[in-house]
Amino acid sequence: MLRYLYPMRTFLIVAGDVKKPNPMTADWVTPLSFNPQLVGIAIGKSRYTRRLIEEQGDFVIAVPTIELLRDVWLAGSVSGARENKVERMSLTFIKSKKVKAPSIKECAANIECRVVNSFETGDHIFFVGEIVNVTASDAFKNDTPDIANYKFVMHVGRGPNFTYQSDELIKL
Amino acid sequence: MLRYLYPMRTFLIVAGDVKKPNPMTADWVTPLSFNPQLVGIAIGKSRYTRRLIEEQGDFVIAVPTIELLRDVWLAGSVSGARENKVERMSLTFIKSKKVKAPSIKECAANIECRVVNSFETGDHIFFVGEIVNVTASDAFKNDTPDIANYKFVMHVGRGPNFTYQSDELIKL
Repeated sequence: MLRYLYPMRTFLIVAGDVKKPNPMTADWVTPLSFNPQLVGIAIGKSRYTRRLIEEQGDFVIAVPTIELLRDVWLAGSVSGARENKVERMSLTFIKSKKVKAPSIKECAANIECRVVNSFETGDHIFFVGEIVNVTASDAFKNDTPDIANYKFVMHVGRGPNFTYQSDELIKL
Repeated sequence: MLRYLYPMRTFLIVAGDVKKPNPMTADWVTPLSFNPQLVGIAIGKSRYTRRLIEEQGDFVIAVPTIELLRDVWLAGSVSGARENKVERMSLTFIKSKKVKAPSIKECAANIECRVVNSFETGDHIFFVGEIVNVTASDAFKNDTPDIANYKFVMHVGRGPNFTYQSDELIKL
């Protein structure tokens, strides 16, 4: 019944480090607090990303643009525990400023988060991260994102008809 | 720094009962678990809606369409504690099936939730709700929402340039 909340924005959660980065596609991302600046992400309990975040205590929320759709798709459909999905991607992983988890050069923004809390919520773990640094493209130089030029990614639904959408629907 | 996650989907959180409904606009909404079906909403600590949800233990996430933009705007800018904002709206509040908090007839979907947990996250309370019932329009009759016909609402940013967007940008 969660599909009634869709379409949702799609992000890349980056765990690991710059030598062994592990990006994962995630829709279940939300701001939680203005002061302190907190965000929350729900990660499936059996996910490799969950283990990496628990071990390292940090993660990056990278904001992909529609040009990165193929990589977003790969990050969401291949497990980093089973194969090195990064090799199949065209993304460039670079050092973040304040956390060990890397940023993605091609993304519109990289939100660096340190885990300050986590809760079990059903079949997921909900990590609460404090934002400790952000790097971003010109699309974010004003108070509101420049959506005329910045083509963000949305996820329409689960199942065999997985589709992603920016300002126009793109069928894979 | 939360603005890097925007634009975000915008929903109406309905608290109270059908005699005294209190709708509030909220972007900070996320799925949390497939089994059980859980969703999370972050509500400002000082909000009237927070008190209502804590007292009653349930809420409805109503999914507005772009046609309801004026009401979405009102629900997000007027406090239900200070005035009866519902009187200024054109929304029809109807009984929900499984919770006391009412549904909104004009919305594309009404997701009825019972609070199963809550956490303090900075200046907000994060309520975890189990979905106990959903009523929805034909836009949701397939596995993926019918976004060709269903014009959902997005929120671009905070501050003086508050704007909402569906598939085309609408300036208020």
